[in-house]
Amino acid sequence: MTESKSYHMSPYEFRKQGRAVVDWIADYYENIESYPVLSQVQPGEIRKSLPESPPEQGEPFDAILKDIRDKILPGVTHWQSPNFFAFFPANTSGPSILGELLSAGLGVQGMLWAASPACTELETHVMDWLVDMMELPGTFKSSNTGGGVIQDSASSASLCALIAARERATGYASNERGCDGRLTVYTSNQAHSSIEKGVKIAGIGRENIRLIGVDDTFAMSPEALQAKIREDRQTGKIPCFVSATVGTTSSNAVDPLPDIGRICREEGVWLHVDAAMGGTATLCPEFRYIHEGLEYADSYCFNPHKWMFTNFDCDCFYVADRATLIRALSILPEYLRNKATESGAVIDYRDWQIPLGRRFRSLKLWFVIRYYGIEGLQYHIRRHVELARNFAKWVEESDQFELAAPVPLNLVCFRYVGGDEINQKLMDRLNQTGKLYLTHTSLNDRMTLRFCAGQTYTEVRHVKTAWKLIQETAKALKAEC
Amino acid sequence: MTESKSYHMSPYEFRKQGRAVVDWIADYYENIESYPVLSQVQPGEIRKSLPESPPEQGEPFDAILKDIRDKILPGVTHWQSPNFFAFFPANTSGPSILGELLSAGLGVQGMLWAASPACTELETHVMDWLVDMMELPGTFKSSNTGGGVIQDSASSASLCALIAARERATGYASNERGCDGRLTVYTSNQAHSSIEKGVKIAGIGRENIRLIGVDDTFAMSPEALQAKIREDRQTGKIPCFVSATVGTTSSNAVDPLPDIGRICREEGVWLHVDAAMGGTATLCPEFRYIHEGLEYADSYCFNPHKWMFTNFDCDCFYVADRATLIRALSILPEYLRNKATESGAVIDYRDWQIPLGRRFRSLKLWFVIRYYGIEGLQYHIRRHVELARNFAKWVEESDQFELAAPVPLNLVCFRYVGGDEINQKLMDRLNQTGKLYLTHTSLNDRMTLRFCAGQTYTEVRHVKTAWKLIQETAKALKAEC
Repeated sequence: MTESKSYHMSPYEFRKQGRAVVDWIADYYENIESYPVLSQVQPGEIRKSLPESPPEQGEPFDAILKDIRDKILPGVTHWQSPNFFAFFPANTSGPSILGELLSAGLGVQGMLWAASPACTELETHVMDWLVDMMELPGTFKSSNTGGGVIQDSASSASLCALIAARERATGYASNERGCDGRLTVYTSNQAHSSIEKGVKIAGIGRENIRLIGVDDTFAMSPEALQAKIREDRQTGKIPCFVSATVGTTSSNAVDPLPDIGRICREEGVWLHVDAAMGGTATLCPEFRYIHEGLEYADSYCFNPHKWMFTNFDCDCFYVADRATLIRALSILPEYLRNKATESGAVIDYRDWQIPLGRRFRSLKLWFVIRYYGIEGLQYHIRRHVELARNFAKWVEESDQFELAAPVPLNLVCFRYVGGDEINQKLMDRLNQTGKLYLTHTSLNDRMTLRFCAGQTYTEVRHVKTAWKLIQETAKALKAEC
Repeated sequence: MTESKSYHMSPYEFRKQGRAVVDWIADYYENIESYPVLSQVQPGEIRKSLPESPPEQGEPFDAILKDIRDKILPGVTHWQSPNFFAFFPANTSGPSILGELLSAGLGVQGMLWAASPACTELETHVMDWLVDMMELPGTFKSSNTGGGVIQDSASSASLCALIAARERATGYASNERGCDGRLTVYTSNQAHSSIEKGVKIAGIGRENIRLIGVDDTFAMSPEALQAKIREDRQTGKIPCFVSATVGTTSSNAVDPLPDIGRICREEGVWLHVDAAMGGTATLCPEFRYIHEGLEYADSYCFNPHKWMFTNFDCDCFYVADRATLIRALSILPEYLRNKATESGAVIDYRDWQIPLGRRFRSLKLWFVIRYYGIEGLQYHIRRHVELARNFAKWVEESDQFELAAPVPLNLVCFRYVGGDEINQKLMDRLNQTGKLYLTHTSLNDRMTLRFCAGQTYTEVRHVKTAWKLIQETAKALKAEC
């Protein structure tokens, strides 16, 4: 932004266009309820509106920003709409957006401590704060044997945990000689698909995952886990990794960590706890029971980019013993050698993750924690859980709908009393209205609707309107049959 | 940003604070030369300045922004300073920063086409544009058998390529049954450390990497590659992956793709081409010779977040046959099933990468291409190469310094005539001045200084001043000895 001419955006223009984008975003949030939540475009429609060739000459920024409204917005599914109840949320907030902006402006690449000490130290600091805020096990703190790091997603966190577990179980031989098909991995049949994906990536092989059965709350059976581990040992397998879930994707089920943890401890198997969605709830003391038994965990993750008003990507990943993780993932080529690294006095987060480079992601998390304070975060978590519980109550009281699973936190699994077909039709028709967006899962082999209350700006009025629309649409569908 | 109270940032405040952050960034760039390029803080110094406990109550945004200047900035190594000549750059620009801001504001999570069609389609569109802009092989286009996807980094791109290669070589058996220690991987002894890291992560084992020797330009020897592949086949190994580099990290060496490519084709081995840094140069026709032979590649990546004014993270990864990549990485749990996916008419980028979730990263890339135009991008690439060549000429003309490698693009490897010790001292003293930042490597077992001209705002005056300071500092050091 020095010496203009030469195609760069001048400081003057950056100020002007920066304001335009900030205002654009503020306008967007003020009008967000006017857009259909689920984009209604057909495959290929957005591309068709774009010029086939890239421009030879630069274009004015105004023209680009205009295209966002005219060409891009119709193809956006509005994750930040208060009527977004699909999947799990990826919520955000003003302070988070501005933290991301500042991170982009500073343009720091924090692969090494020396590459920007503040990028590493703020991250360690905020990760330690969260241990206190959520009363996580003390071993997760950087002042203890463990520590925390920001990953892009729970998928990547689980993969890092799996690699560390694989190496611990084989005395670091897999890193050296490769996997040999004997390692086994355990998770419930309700666990997130990223565990299976990680097992494939890590060269362990899908045949070596054991999908452990669940009880009638969709929580992992410790007895079945124990039996499977013993059986595998008897056939020469090497059990290395158990992934337990606190808040499964399908139904928010909470695996029994104390029992699973004791089994892992006795068997010497790495316990990873995936609380991607649920973890944030433990900002409130009354929800901390879901983490009971977490002291057995070798690793743990939760996603502020789901439910903590911090925009994607921001997964917080903790280990109880950082030495194992670092040994499993470290590399040190000559061109990255530096005095700070060799002193051993600093953290180089490149050895805590899959990629080498990294953004200054702790800024947005720090902004959110400071702007809301613990009090503000607790307020909103409680509000979301209450919204979900109210919705669940209405479902229970209705004779046309039924709950399909318990509602420990902010996800309601429910269905219209009727078969899968009418539930599928109901969901499709609701989503086509553009007035709300919800998605489905399968529980006990039955089509199940999921209603997750976790979007930043969802208020009681949105949930009431959604429930009314769901009831009316079901009634109309029934009348058609 | 609706219904204020309740801890959220109001639209009014978002506009106000958004402007403040935009102005902060503009001020930062206007004053960036006044900061020491390499942060001068000691380990732990930044953390010490931060409060030990997180705040119970929220804080005003002004207070947070004030801390950026007071507490964070001293710990920042200024990657965006025009005097940053270290590592490879991670350059950025006004349009890129505003693209990232807009992406954060929209808060879209694009794991599936349906989760925001525009997020997927704009990405495919811009990736296709770049095939045209750089004259990449036509197979990389989405209208052909292949396609492109944005990854966070070249490390992740290489890992995805490696997984696909592993599966192609074993008939997808590694995914099912795990690796078995027979697969082998080839790259030059100058290749980026991420290849070794990927091999460890993928369960192939470090013993199974062959670091192929190089010629006197530090480019891979095709003869040595051919011999090693044959030797491995004879001992029952399964050669599965060759990673060639266009612009190595140490010295910007360009591996001979035509010869390597022919060997890979004959041997049925996957060829990945890592052009993380160098690739961007091919926006200019006169540098396209570095991609000669790229038609043999099964996969390819380059990083707009290094040299194309697009802030980290943005790696462009292409495959010639998308079916193999997708089959190697795909997962489809019930809760992600949807009509668009099942129609087969859309791309779901979750199956092209390690994590599940993804940001709307194509926005910033689209902004950069449109704002600069092909012409503007070419102008700056040429300017950077010229800056590096001028610097190289000064080194050559000096009797105190020597070039340590050819200068094909924008990296100059050089050393003071004297041993490793004085070069180490020279680098340390230069970086301590805060007036510039450069890093080192090892070439032919000798300490080598690296000077990379690729920061967005580096002008001829910065390079002149740097060269003057390097000469004066060396002279002073010599006088002390």
